[in-house]
Amino acid sequence: MTTPVTTPLTVAGADEVKPPAGPGDGHHLLSIADLGAEGIEEVLRVSDAFVEVARRPIPKVPALRGRTVVTLFAEESTRTRFSFETAAKRLSADVLSFAVASSSLKKGESLRDTVETVAAMGVDAFIIRHPSAGAPAQVARWVEASVINAGDGWHEHPTQALLDCYTIRQVLAERVGRPVAETGVEVFAGLKVAIVGDVAHSRVARSGVLALAALGAEVTVVAPGSLMPPSLEGWPIAGVSHDLDAVLPTVDVCYLLRLQTERGTGSFLPSVREYTAGFGLTARRAALLAEGAIVMHPGPMNRGVEIADEVADLPRSVVLRQVANGVAVRMAVLFLLLGQVAGGDAAGSVAGLGAGPGGADG
Amino acid sequence: MTTPVTTPLTVAGADEVKPPAGPGDGHHLLSIADLGAEGIEEVLRVSDAFVEVARRPIPKVPALRGRTVVTLFAEESTRTRFSFETAAKRLSADVLSFAVASSSLKKGESLRDTVETVAAMGVDAFIIRHPSAGAPAQVARWVEASVINAGDGWHEHPTQALLDCYTIRQVLAERVGRPVAETGVEVFAGLKVAIVGDVAHSRVARSGVLALAALGAEVTVVAPGSLMPPSLEGWPIAGVSHDLDAVLPTVDVCYLLRLQTERGTGSFLPSVREYTAGFGLTARRAALLAEGAIVMHPGPMNRGVEIADEVADLPRSVVLRQVANGVAVRMAVLFLLLGQVAGGDAAGSVAGLGAGPGGADG
Amino acid sequence: MTTPVTTPLTVAGADEVKPPAGPGDGHHLLSIADLGAEGIEEVLRVSDAFVEVARRPIPKVPALRGRTVVTLFAEESTRTRFSFETAAKRLSADVLSFAVASSSLKKGESLRDTVETVAAMGVDAFIIRHPSAGAPAQVARWVEASVINAGDGWHEHPTQALLDCYTIRQVLAERVGRPVAETGVEVFAGLKVAIVGDVAHSRVARSGVLALAALGAEVTVVAPGSLMPPSLEGWPIAGVSHDLDAVLPTVDVCYLLRLQTERGTGSFLPSVREYTAGFGLTARRAALLAEGAIVMHPGPMNRGVEIADEVADLPRSVVLRQVANGVAVRMAVLFLLLGQVAGGDAAGSVAGLGAGPGGADG
Repeated sequence: MTTPVTTPLTVAGADEVKPPAGPGDGHHLLSIADLGAEGIEEVLRVSDAFVEVARRPIPKVPALRGRTVVTLFAEESTRTRFSFETAAKRLSADVLSFAVASSSLKKGESLRDTVETVAAMGVDAFIIRHPSAGAPAQVARWVEASVINAGDGWHEHPTQALLDCYTIRQVLAERVGRPVAETGVEVFAGLKVAIVGDVAHSRVARSGVLALAALGAEVTVVAPGSLMPPSLEGWPIAGVSHDLDAVLPTVDVCYLLRLQTERGTGSFLPSVREYTAGFGLTARRAALLAEGAIVMHPGPMNRGVEIADEVADLPRSVVLRQVANGVAVRMAVLFLLLGQVAGGDAAGSVAGLGAGPGGADG
Repeated sequence: MTTPVTTPLTVAGADEVKPPAGPGDGHHLLSIADLGAEGIEEVLRVSDAFVEVARRPIPKVPALRGRTVVTLFAEESTRTRFSFETAAKRLSADVLSFAVASSSLKKGESLRDTVETVAAMGVDAFIIRHPSAGAPAQVARWVEASVINAGDGWHEHPTQALLDCYTIRQVLAERVGRPVAETGVEVFAGLKVAIVGDVAHSRVARSGVLALAALGAEVTVVAPGSLMPPSLEGWPIAGVSHDLDAVLPTVDVCYLLRLQTERGTGSFLPSVREYTAGFGLTARRAALLAEGAIVMHPGPMNRGVEIADEVADLPRSVVLRQVANGVAVRMAVLFLLLGQVAGGDAAGSVAGLGAGPGGADG
Repeated sequence: MTTPVTTPLTVAGADEVKPPAGPGDGHHLLSIADLGAEGIEEVLRVSDAFVEVARRPIPKVPALRGRTVVTLFAEESTRTRFSFETAAKRLSADVLSFAVASSSLKKGESLRDTVETVAAMGVDAFIIRHPSAGAPAQVARWVEASVINAGDGWHEHPTQALLDCYTIRQVLAERVGRPVAETGVEVFAGLKVAIVGDVAHSRVARSGVLALAALGAEVTVVAPGSLMPPSLEGWPIAGVSHDLDAVLPTVDVCYLLRLQTERGTGSFLPSVREYTAGFGLTARRAALLAEGAIVMHPGPMNRGVEIADEVADLPRSVVLRQVANGVAVRMAVLFLLLGQVAGGDAAGSVAGLGAGPGGADG
């Protein structure tokens, strides 16, 4: 059930998206599909170091000092942008923020001219959110800078999947009292995960399924028929269900998707109330979960829709841990993509970076 | 006439707003009422050090290096946000800016989920402006980070009152040729201040009255009946007047409030012109002021409404000094709230921070 | 054909725009007309050092550490703002960004009160874009901080002209295999440049003509009658033409202006298609250019209007080099205006700044 892709992160998607004659080596994070189990494991391992950095009095390292990172968001998502910007600043990078209505890109200057212009100013990485699937991969063909996909249409949202995997591994390590850094991805083998909700229109679901399956977890997607993709061919899933009550007692992780009513998802549903009745994690349903099973959500939560207020605040809900780990995981991704220019191995050198407050500046 | 509250700044509002079982010590600046004379004096004393820093070739100290400060403004106020952000950057903190239409907080994600999410990313302080009185105190209940009230509804705007007090003390020290740092708050004893204008809808008036009264000044509020609060019970004022001409010759400080016509204040008035006729500081009225009396305004000024053009530009108008001192006072507040984590006494250690350009980086 | 102004950059416009009793020395870049050949040459020479900095692993120097630069844009131009902000950050300055709808300046607070307020917070430089010609010069009268004109109405856009001159000099130096740093402005003598398009409404054209003529180039302006200024008196040009085909074979540089259809330029034209037919650089027309002639454009390009898609991507099109050089040239301008406060000669000391990664921080 795992996808057998093993391309390491540092050349993710390079052969696929860079023109043959491109002068530099491609260094992108476009899709979980490019990473494979090995690439995912590398990110999780490097993230451990940055979770530790976050606990320091001065949670900052000079790793990317002098580098410039641009967030180019053609769909606004303050929380994701904040998370990336916080990650970049903790690595001492300079951050420029480019908020564009996707419409303003269409009229006048093309997306290509915009990114080539910004790239010419000396940018090291583009973090791109765009309503069109494949836009970050397009950008990666145009520029030498690294490109990170921060969500493209219904396609992928790879850093979300990575932070979700990190959080699961962290919880599982704590449960057996083992340091997370000594916990490999073997803990995912046979782990049972339900991904619940609007699977059809969710890049979070797609990236999550790919990452969890690559690590050996068994994922069941749970949705009403109208929110299930027309075909699940090629999805590395263990099962499909329309009956949340039946699935809940069997899983280790219940992952709820956001019902994106603001994007017109509503038109696929008789009513939001009916959705909640059938697929919302109400208090009654949460009681069906096995002891130790956790509840996850990518945020922002629609309390009272896909998750009940009191369930969101249960100890088994790890939503805020996902957010906290998101900064460390994005630091790891940025470090792996950009931190090796001065030479040296990322995984090897990260532990030695910025040893204590004295090493951090900027 | 002083309010007898003596809680020091470093635990301001802690017992009032933090839940009993909160894990950390509350460190907030929510209200002048929480500070008391002692707390105000501490801020003024620490501000002296930062006024001195502002005169250096490199006006920056590493005090908050690695700390993250978020400005969360649900009402836009570029000048206040700039002042706080400049203060944070001069302390070498990282700053993230979260501009929200208050309506977008209401629909979809709640204010609570928003701030808890941002807090989970590792934020050390929230600087909050919000149209609802009490919103910053609410936020302080939800997060462990420090919360600074940058203006909440008609309630309070404590840093405005602190910078106003700093400016008055600075002017009084200069008048007698004494270094400001050697000038205590005893200079406020018996000082006569008029606060003029829309007292009913002004958080500046409320915070100003509380701070000035706590330090021993005698404040008279001057307004037309329709702009006076329905009750002044509990306001520590020395007097109320509807006759600006009668009050002007008696005061050391004439503090003009902004007529916030853009917030519909107009509906409480027959006309703006009539307001200016009765309560605007025209050139004729300014001539009624005693020699040495100063004119203050929180900005932005409506020239020709509450203050005449030529009065705004008189030497006795200290509006731009208020702005300049605002940065130093906000540095002091941030430093007192966040700068003590590494241990050590704020007031004692501030003088030794960043001794010269060599000590400043970032 | 050169304008005989020789005021050096560091006092540009000082005598003209500062009030006689101003306390400080004026340090502004308001107009190419103030610079003269000597001032332009100084900027180009200092830019060489920053082009070299851009090639370092950590392309950052501590030259403006602790200084605060504000971008105040009353017309949005993300690319110009980004270029200035990147330049300021690479010099380790703090950057605050003040985006204002020009209308919001008109109602409520005046431009004067806004800039005086921001200046009072301790700002070292204002970078101003404004729809009204002369607005930056006005600001320079009000504040002691340095003012850089980032485009004012149809008047000037001096840093655009400086980066254009830098790019031409760089290309000419490469052509003869000489290091750019050893190439003086003598290469401009007799250089033939066509500036093509909406000359009447272009600050880029005006600044470009002034700069190129000052350095000895011979500029011909090419436009349909309706886009030519009513009078060209005082423009130091070598010629005027309405026939692009006739001019193209004679020039070393073909500089295309942006047709600003979004600003209603269209009303001066029968149709955009007709403009392209007569004045667009189509593939057929580009073939008329002499070998070695280059194509320039200030961006953003209207592909298919003033420049054909395939021409924009020819090797002779140096549009992205203009963008890249823009950051270095703006670093030079900021450094020359702000970097000398600590004493020492700019041109002399720039080479020694931040020698290697160890010298850069922040």
